[in-house]
Amino acid sequence: MIKLNAITISIGDELLSGKTIDSNNAYISQQLDLIGIPVVKKLIIGDVREDIIDALDWAFAQADILTLTGGLGPTHDDITKSVLCEYFGVALVPYPELLEKLKERFIKRGFKFSVSNESQAEYPENAALLENPVGTAQGMHFVHKGKHLFVMAGVPNEMKAVTDKGIIPILATLTSALVEKIDIHSIGIPESTLYELSKPIFDEHPNLKVAYLPKQGMVTIRLSINSNNVGENTAFLLGIFEQIRQRRPKNIYGHDREDLSSVIGSLLLERKATVATAESCTGGLVASMITDINGSSDYFSTGFVTYANQTKQKLLGVREETLARHGAVSEETVSEMLSGTLRHAESNYAIAISGVAGPTGGSAEKPVGTVYIGVADNSRQHIQRFQFGNNRILNKEMSAFTALNQLRLLMEGLI
Amino acid sequence: MIKLNAITISIGDELLSGKTIDSNNAYISQQLDLIGIPVVKKLIIGDVREDIIDALDWAFAQADILTLTGGLGPTHDDITKSVLCEYFGVALVPYPELLEKLKERFIKRGFKFSVSNESQAEYPENAALLENPVGTAQGMHFVHKGKHLFVMAGVPNEMKAVTDKGIIPILATLTSALVEKIDIHSIGIPESTLYELSKPIFDEHPNLKVAYLPKQGMVTIRLSINSNNVGENTAFLLGIFEQIRQRRPKNIYGHDREDLSSVIGSLLLERKATVATAESCTGGLVASMITDINGSSDYFSTGFVTYANQTKQKLLGVREETLARHGAVSEETVSEMLSGTLRHAESNYAIAISGVAGPTGGSAEKPVGTVYIGVADNSRQHIQRFQFGNNRILNKEMSAFTALNQLRLLMEGLI
Repeated sequence: MIKLNAITISIGDELLSGKTIDSNNAYISQQLDLIGIPVVKKLIIGDVREDIIDALDWAFAQADILTLTGGLGPTHDDITKSVLCEYFGVALVPYPELLEKLKERFIKRGFKFSVSNESQAEYPENAALLENPVGTAQGMHFVHKGKHLFVMAGVPNEMKAVTDKGIIPILATLTSALVEKIDIHSIGIPESTLYELSKPIFDEHPNLKVAYLPKQGMVTIRLSINSNNVGENTAFLLGIFEQIRQRRPKNIYGHDREDLSSVIGSLLLERKATVATAESCTGGLVASMITDINGSSDYFSTGFVTYANQTKQKLLGVREETLARHGAVSEETVSEMLSGTLRHAESNYAIAISGVAGPTGGSAEKPVGTVYIGVADNSRQHIQRFQFGNNRILNKEMSAFTALNQLRLLMEGLI
Repeated sequence: MIKLNAITISIGDELLSGKTIDSNNAYISQQLDLIGIPVVKKLIIGDVREDIIDALDWAFAQADILTLTGGLGPTHDDITKSVLCEYFGVALVPYPELLEKLKERFIKRGFKFSVSNESQAEYPENAALLENPVGTAQGMHFVHKGKHLFVMAGVPNEMKAVTDKGIIPILATLTSALVEKIDIHSIGIPESTLYELSKPIFDEHPNLKVAYLPKQGMVTIRLSINSNNVGENTAFLLGIFEQIRQRRPKNIYGHDREDLSSVIGSLLLERKATVATAESCTGGLVASMITDINGSSDYFSTGFVTYANQTKQKLLGVREETLARHGAVSEETVSEMLSGTLRHAESNYAIAISGVAGPTGGSAEKPVGTVYIGVADNSRQHIQRFQFGNNRILNKEMSAFTALNQLRLLMEGLI
């Protein structure tokens, strides 16, 4: 098995200034990854002659495969092609058939073919062209000192077309390496604890590569392993997922594309059951997350956003004395919100949330970030107090994700 | 005026594999840009000792300011700190006070403080710490050969906090370059139209730098101009904003930190008025956006998420025959949703939305992306049909943003 690695270079001032986020290179990385070629470095530079030349020297010295995107348009600031000619010591050569095709294409779309577009039919003489079916700048393939350089336009759909139809088929002939991966998703458990409980499992499999990816208070563990055949290690990776899940079933909710909305959606569909929501501090975010899933109307009909005490009384039947005695942010209020939701929405399950999202409104007893999250079916309620942080938006998100997870736990008999 | 430049380095296998898009560095670039320090190169590398050392050598040789993000968590794959010690030939030193603070924080949230977290209270001895108020990994500031290296965690809100409160104030003392900016926000107008209507204004001021930043179907125009003193051009930039706003008052809703939620919040507060929502296809997203604003309980009490027809009837009094005759996605249904919302929530204003979010559920007459958005006060209703795209999540977002803008237009007498 030949081991190859890659470096990606992006050219564009808009990427350096932070006006545009470089999503192109994420796409290229993913595609190379699928055929077992890891991207080991990524470099972003401006439309500057010296920087492009330095970048080529730097990358050819370190990697087998180079990709270069950007700076191939018809305007003055697109210098990539002329710098490539200088770098390789070659001339541009015209492609008359390509010129005819480009002219036809402009006319068909009702545009004028301006002289500046003629450069799109000229390429360095040592380049093999890779067809770009969705734009005017063709892809280029150079072989230099036994290494491969691929050059593409930076427009996302053009980059994708050249990558899929030009680059990947060429590279697939060079490598038989394959990498299989699994993403294991957790909630409500610190990265350090997750690390300690899963380490003994991973230590038994030294060929497993492990990464911890924290995001919004939730941590994903990414496992990868080299395979010789497609699917060779799929069952093995799912087995590892099961081992970790069994150690913390309350915190590990799914893998890969399973997010909390889709997990509770599947559980509800399986049971032909419905859920309704009553939200105070999350202000509708839980309902919005549930309805992010296509087909959610099969199990979600009704959400109450009861931001004011009066609305909690009127829509859900929360009693005035409960609010007066225990406050809106309390187990007692959430309990009555749950009963009211089940009754008024006629659903099988209910979620109710009341808390202090902040940044103002906290007290010594119930500081900012205090949230009561309740879930219920028609036979029982489970209400728990959580303490999140000081950021309003993050508190809303953590509360909403946690509420969906609590519903999962209730449905699976884990709380 | 001293001219400084910067290189950003991101560490993280997830960035190389393309699973995560590097939005952090866009943020750092933007913030440096505001104080006149251009980012000239960006490098992304893995959690690999040699690559981190090479990257530091490479970047120190080319730039005055270096930022390094990632690899600062408590797990084994986070090696940044030990590599920095090796690079500078220094030891890690413990910060006992920080350790106590970290322990307190874990206990407050109800988590166990595990041993692997102790490393979060140890830093290279030549590092000055930059407080991270939202996470455990503190920022670091190194001065090396007269150049500045800043090191931060890769978690976006931690990176932002350290950048804003630690790095920018330090760098602002090094440079007297000042760039003043204004972001002008629009909705419901194509980038090309915005370009054509604003170009004559910008052409009169050749010293103005202009960028168009499209996002989620909305376009922000960013104007920047060099200044010698703080605030020198503030009035000038606001004047340009006013000129553009006057050309398209329906589409230009604010500048800088004004988003649609805060704009309608201010309008409602000014009038001591309240708004309530009735949402079908947006599933609670409008209510959630309204309640993203601290203090929104002063003007928002009630939201109805009426996903099912039956719920529209039961909670809002939409008539069965209206639904049968015109369908849930219709002007007639939205009209009755508006009346029902005003009546049941006893609010001054109402928003109601019904549409086909997709990807399934479209018809020839009402394809995916068809959304009826209504706004009303107690004297009149305004309902409009919009045609968005095929992506469910984007359709929800565009519908919600458009609904907030329609409420603004109603309140300002523009529809």
